[in-house]
Amino acid sequence: SRLLEIPCIINHESEISCRRDSQDVYVPFSFIKTYFEVYGRVDQRSDGSEVFEWSHSYSRVYEPQGHYDPTGTFLNFELYNVEARERVKCVSATEGVPISTQWQSSGYTYPIQIAQFGLSHYCKYLTEQPPERVTLEDGVHKGNWHYESSEAHVSRSLDLTTFVNVLKFRTPESITKCGALLKVSEPKTQNLLVLNINILLLRNASFTVTLEYKYKKPELITLHYVRSEKLLQVKDHQISYGIGEETGWRRITRNLLIDVHKGAAASPQLRKQLKKVSKSKLKVISICLNGEGSLANMTLASAEHLHHFYDAANWLLKHQDGDGGWSIPVPRKVISGVLELDAGWYSAMAQGQAMSLLVRAAHHSGDSRYLKAAMRATSLFFINATKGGVKTYFPGGYVWYEEYPTNPSLFVLNGFIYSLLGLYDLKEFSLDSNNNSGDLFLEGMKSLKKLLPLFDTGWGSLYDLRHFTTHVAPNRARWDYHTTHITQLLLLASVDSDPVILSTAQRWKEYMVGHRASHN
Amino acid sequence: SRLLEIPCIINHESEISCRRDSQDVYVPFSFIKTYFEVYGRVDQRSDGSEVFEWSHSYSRVYEPQGHYDPTGTFLNFELYNVEARERVKCVSATEGVPISTQWQSSGYTYPIQIAQFGLSHYCKYLTEQPPERVTLEDGVHKGNWHYESSEAHVSRSLDLTTFVNVLKFRTPESITKCGALLKVSEPKTQNLLVLNINILLLRNASFTVTLEYKYKKPELITLHYVRSEKLLQVKDHQISYGIGEETGWRRITRNLLIDVHKGAAASPQLRKQLKKVSKSKLKVISICLNGEGSLANMTLASAEHLHHFYDAANWLLKHQDGDGGWSIPVPRKVISGVLELDAGWYSAMAQGQAMSLLVRAAHHSGDSRYLKAAMRATSLFFINATKGGVKTYFPGGYVWYEEYPTNPSLFVLNGFIYSLLGLYDLKEFSLDSNNNSGDLFLEGMKSLKKLLPLFDTGWGSLYDLRHFTTHVAPNRARWDYHTTHITQLLLLASVDSDPVILSTAQRWKEYMVGHRASHN
Ligand SMILES: [Ca+2]
Ligand SMILES: [Ca+2]
Repeated sequence: SRLLEIPCIINHESEISCRRDSQDVYVPFSFIKTYFEVYGRVDQRSDGSEVFEWSHSYSRVYEPQGHYDPTGTFLNFELYNVEARERVKCVSATEGVPISTQWQSSGYTYPIQIAQFGLSHYCKYLTEQPPERVTLEDGVHKGNWHYESSEAHVSRSLDLTTFVNVLKFRTPESITKCGALLKVSEPKTQNLLVLNINILLLRNASFTVTLEYKYKKPELITLHYVRSEKLLQVKDHQISYGIGEETGWRRITRNLLIDVHKGAAASPQLRKQLKKVSKSKLKVISICLNGEGSLANMTLASAEHLHHFYDAANWLLKHQDGDGGWSIPVPRKVISGVLELDAGWYSAMAQGQAMSLLVRAAHHSGDSRYLKAAMRATSLFFINATKGGVKTYFPGGYVWYEEYPTNPSLFVLNGFIYSLLGLYDLKEFSLDSNNNSGDLFLEGMKSLKKLLPLFDTGWGSLYDLRHFTTHVAPNRARWDYHTTHITQLLLLASVDSDPVILSTAQRWKEYMVGHRASHN
Repeated sequence: SRLLEIPCIINHESEISCRRDSQDVYVPFSFIKTYFEVYGRVDQRSDGSEVFEWSHSYSRVYEPQGHYDPTGTFLNFELYNVEARERVKCVSATEGVPISTQWQSSGYTYPIQIAQFGLSHYCKYLTEQPPERVTLEDGVHKGNWHYESSEAHVSRSLDLTTFVNVLKFRTPESITKCGALLKVSEPKTQNLLVLNINILLLRNASFTVTLEYKYKKPELITLHYVRSEKLLQVKDHQISYGIGEETGWRRITRNLLIDVHKGAAASPQLRKQLKKVSKSKLKVISICLNGEGSLANMTLASAEHLHHFYDAANWLLKHQDGDGGWSIPVPRKVISGVLELDAGWYSAMAQGQAMSLLVRAAHHSGDSRYLKAAMRATSLFFINATKGGVKTYFPGGYVWYEEYPTNPSLFVLNGFIYSLLGLYDLKEFSLDSNNNSGDLFLEGMKSLKKLLPLFDTGWGSLYDLRHFTTHVAPNRARWDYHTTHITQLLLLASVDSDPVILSTAQRWKEYMVGHRASHN
């Protein structure tokens, strides 16, 4: 059919070039895409013909399977890869938890991110196939160590404090020369990029992993793990992680792919050379020991989810403060000059996500310290945001647990629901009648059921109620938060039968394919 | 440029036919129009070339000029033509007010519509050029009456009860034959279609206007005004309006164009013959008197806005009940089975619009009855909707004056603001310190400023908060209600400097050209 050019005047404001035939006017998608925020791309069908796929939203809803279990998977967190995110500087080798750069480029620990890191690994542990794992050194007979220097020496014995078979080593302290070398050449270790090691390092002892990076021509990359408080340092192809200066036995679990990836991200030069770091390009070549120490049970595996999970859980145990909270050490400007939080604020979402993680750690380990920490985490829910806690009220006395306890209040929806899920997990798992999680959960649910409709715009959802409290424009939830809302509501609908929860979730799903609420 | 056909798959749900070239995909506007609810049409430029005009909305905002004055124009009501609306059955010849069929097809008086009818004529009176007016009979010497029957007779004299020059007439009582005929042939009466008459009819006396309707071939249409309570009857080209059975002098003002138009609308046969009734097609041919009576000051004018205005004001005076209200005599189903009002409900909007009208009538006439009625109209604002009044509360103790006092509450925005404007008019105009309008206004404004953001969806506005109270989908305001919201807010911004009012209005204006609030 013949189409002619016709100018389209958009709302008397601007002009674009359209096409027309006798029946219709055709509008370029490049305009529609921006004007309406929709998505589309030309795709090829199996027969080679082309088709244009129009998508109202870019995100997908996770449909929960059956009744929610506080010791099972958490939402769709098995799909999360927290440590790979751009706003994660790296995983600390001292504590095994992600370091955020979202609001402060120098990096800080963000309890929400740490809890989500732990929960995602817990979910992967539950849902993935058991990992492949190869033992590199077992302290008995495995591990063919080479050393050149006459001062170097390794030996195997039963450690009399831990009753574990260990490899003891002593070589000159050097980072440039390898003290004791273990070649990793077995084809079985292909794609195994998660190193686990129990290690005791004395003085300036360290260990180094050398990897081959195959892109155009093969290059060698070395990951040094040194006794230092310096998080991450990169020089040429040398990436160095500080494992801290504490003494004693340590279990260290490193995702070498992530460690290379984050090293490259930290160095413009290395990033340029390595481009996109991926599993298929990386292969472990050797392990080096330098200085004096002992190690046990060194393995390479396809994954070590439980270790990462416990790294997060133990970080929460260690860093919980006297108020039962994990304060966030950086300021947060929600709206510059209007809604700001000084460093040291608490987040109901952090408290809740921590509860969800700690309940699972308590369940998995049987260790009561995790449950006690989860129960202490409720204290801040009783303190108003204006007094340093996380609680606020919507007019009419409806309590709200604030992800960001600003004044005036913000009423972030997803953070509130995460805090409710934490309270629910604790209430369900805990047999201690002294804990307050049940009351806090029920009060919060009452508010959610009352206020949820205020987040419904008739075509999408709102991220928070800042427009109500500060009179700025409403803060529309982008599609991935919109799907988070839906996923959270579907989960809650499985534990609370009030129709407002399920009907809202269903309506919000409709919005994702362009169906909007009707007008009057 | 060559464009090829390419199928477009819409959200995996449906398929339409698009076009593509090497740069872009072109989407048919017929699809976009429905999917996104936008508007567009091909227009011709002055040079003959074609252009496509894309409109995000179909409605325009009225920008108030200067500070609002409670005795001046009311919003943009000079643009309203209430009586011409389809849901108005006709203007009652008994009381001169519109009869609504919106919620009951047999017709009823709807105080909001009556007040808007009066206010629109008041605004037209203030803003239009003075009308053209031709006197047909002045009771002194004007008017060349013809009568065939020997029993017919007309005479002129000074009426000793009213001290007005009148024409007395006595002819046989007949509707088919003309008792006394006045031909209206002067070219000066062209386009003058509003008849005003002071008349006293005895027994079954009546008067009739004969019009020529020019469409294809000229036809005669007769409008009979008879002493009857029957609102409107149509038989062939005979349209009959009941002026009621009350005795005594009456001032009757009829828009003959509207009377023909409504007669045609009431008769499928006549409507089919007359098609679209318009001013240019109609011409008054003659006036007939039948039976016995007197008349004075009969004129034909281009408009008689003040008369219509006072017809509305006097209806309000006459029909205000002991509670100071104008109850609505028909049931209203807002959401069938969920939000329903039984016949006899009050509306804060009706009360407010009546105040706005009555204050202007008090101002224009100097008659204190109008102001007293306006002051009595506040009583229902103190009574809860659940107790038969119009007041409700949003959580937190925020009062709301309900257009529809349903239980649960509805929180209609435009109706609430109309009620505030009525209270404002009364508070500003009234010098009586006993009246409560000032307090009611200020309390209401406090609520408006607090709750207004809840009507903001980030791309439009909501008509009400039904989703909050009943958990149905949000009720989006269609564009003409959206512009009503903006117009109302701009007016309020001229009397209240709180930035939430003006900034909301400005943001809502942006929504009308497709600019939406940003997402997180
Ligand atoms: Ca969040
Ligand atoms: Ca209305």
